[in-house]
Amino acid sequence: MTQVYDRVALIGLGLIASSMFWAIKRGGLAGEVTGYARSAETRDKAREIGLCDRVCDTAIDAVKDADLIVLCVPVGAMGAVAEEIAPYLKPGATVSDVGSVKQSVIDAVGPHLPDDVHFVPAHPLAGTEHSGPTSGFAELFDNRWCLLVPVEGSDPEAVAKLRALWEGIGANVEEMDAEHHDLVLAVTSHTPHLIAYTMVGVADDLRRVTDSEVIKYSAAGFRDFTRIAASDPTMWRDVFLTNKDATLEILGRFTEELFALQRAIRTGDGDLLHAYFTRTRAIRRGILQAGQDVDSPDFGRGKAKK
Amino acid sequence: MTQVYDRVALIGLGLIASSMFWAIKRGGLAGEVTGYARSAETRDKAREIGLCDRVCDTAIDAVKDADLIVLCVPVGAMGAVAEEIAPYLKPGATVSDVGSVKQSVIDAVGPHLPDDVHFVPAHPLAGTEHSGPTSGFAELFDNRWCLLVPVEGSDPEAVAKLRALWEGIGANVEEMDAEHHDLVLAVTSHTPHLIAYTMVGVADDLRRVTDSEVIKYSAAGFRDFTRIAASDPTMWRDVFLTNKDATLEILGRFTEELFALQRAIRTGDGDLLHAYFTRTRAIRRGILQAGQDVDSPDFGRGKAKK
Repeated sequence: MTQVYDRVALIGLGLIASSMFWAIKRGGLAGEVTGYARSAETRDKAREIGLCDRVCDTAIDAVKDADLIVLCVPVGAMGAVAEEIAPYLKPGATVSDVGSVKQSVIDAVGPHLPDDVHFVPAHPLAGTEHSGPTSGFAELFDNRWCLLVPVEGSDPEAVAKLRALWEGIGANVEEMDAEHHDLVLAVTSHTPHLIAYTMVGVADDLRRVTDSEVIKYSAAGFRDFTRIAASDPTMWRDVFLTNKDATLEILGRFTEELFALQRAIRTGDGDLLHAYFTRTRAIRRGILQAGQDVDSPDFGRGKAKK
Repeated sequence: MTQVYDRVALIGLGLIASSMFWAIKRGGLAGEVTGYARSAETRDKAREIGLCDRVCDTAIDAVKDADLIVLCVPVGAMGAVAEEIAPYLKPGATVSDVGSVKQSVIDAVGPHLPDDVHFVPAHPLAGTEHSGPTSGFAELFDNRWCLLVPVEGSDPEAVAKLRALWEGIGANVEEMDAEHHDLVLAVTSHTPHLIAYTMVGVADDLRRVTDSEVIKYSAAGFRDFTRIAASDPTMWRDVFLTNKDATLEILGRFTEELFALQRAIRTGDGDLLHAYFTRTRAIRRGILQAGQDVDSPDFGRGKAKK
């Protein structure tokens, strides 16, 4: 691998940033990686485990002279961070992010950035149920997708460089526009997560009725929903608040379908149920054919380091 | 292991029956295992692969002189099979089943059985996304739960013998009553499955809009829902039709919760979302503490033999 950037700054030091750091080091993709986290505890922990070549006490220090600045904070915090660092960005530098929602990040970050800085939003589709600076590992993005969402006027060379970084990190890279990204993710990730959270919430209420049996017999289907429900609450709160329209649209379709199936159960319409369950087999075959299945279903999460 | 029954008859030769056969052979748990399937094609396939010591062309032949008869057909077909075989059951024999719903099986099968036959319904919590006579393997039930649901007046000795068989097959055995079983399974299995089917149905519609992207980016959460949606349509149709009350009750709670979260998204109530997502972490911890988690989430399915 060859170096892609002289200096990279990671703002926010959670699962994604720490995994990026280890992958950048593995690939020799940057000369120096600086890091900043809002909490002093996180910064201390980062220094203790050697996360980042240099951990800074302010975001401003971290971004100084950086060629690439990656915002790795919850989507709802991106705007404030961008506003804070904007005056200190090096001309010609690229600002990117790793948020799960793109239009709202573009709206929040874009207006703060000076004209001589490139803005190339990105979204790596990877994660685990663990969070924080100690949860990262170099392999998190290997063979995962990273979606680049260039904005109007994004410099092609800046986009190509960021692509090279993510490919060096191990990811497969695609480009798409923000609106499309947010809809596709609402279908493939955001709504499934909300549904799983909801199911676990229902069971949590019922657990008081059925004692520990919901847990004991969780392997019958429920268990995998709980893996999602251990994801970072702040990150997911922000996802739903910022991808509101697309999530509500897909949720609307979901409840419509669910009510149709519920009605079929109530009225005993076995033919409808059978036809529905037969139809859904096709999409499964599509996933197998596309080589997107793995032995260990993991809701897009790599195997987490313990 | 020691032999538990002289002769076992398996009625229906799908994933569960074929796995039971291989596990019974592995453990030397029965002198002879006979088998019957309605379809001549399935019977031929069974003979071809050595599934069952003797494959019979009628259910009546299969159950003759059997000490244990296990009904391994979809829940909706149990009553008719019981009616057909009832006159030919050996006095003192035990009739059991493997249905995912218990009260409706008891209602459908019980009235047909003669007084000198024991009835001990059962439900092994195991499966894969594959079905049919070639899908079985001896390890399917290893360390999985098998729930025995004795009916009023079930002979304790008959229950103990069936427990010994399932333990020999590799399962952990618990007893509970039918109503309770159906509620617990509605929470831990049936409703999660219906929800996953629904989500896949929604995506199947949207796939036409977003081309193959739903599949391409399915690893972000959606993929694991599709594993469920490849399960046997007939089996699941019958589950929902026969566990109607419990499923509708849990579905009612589910939509109530989902609407509360949907409203929070619409109104931008981040505090509610954050509190909800924080609360659901606790049940995940419970599952980890109970040792019910595995590295490979699989919706209760063992690793399927290809």
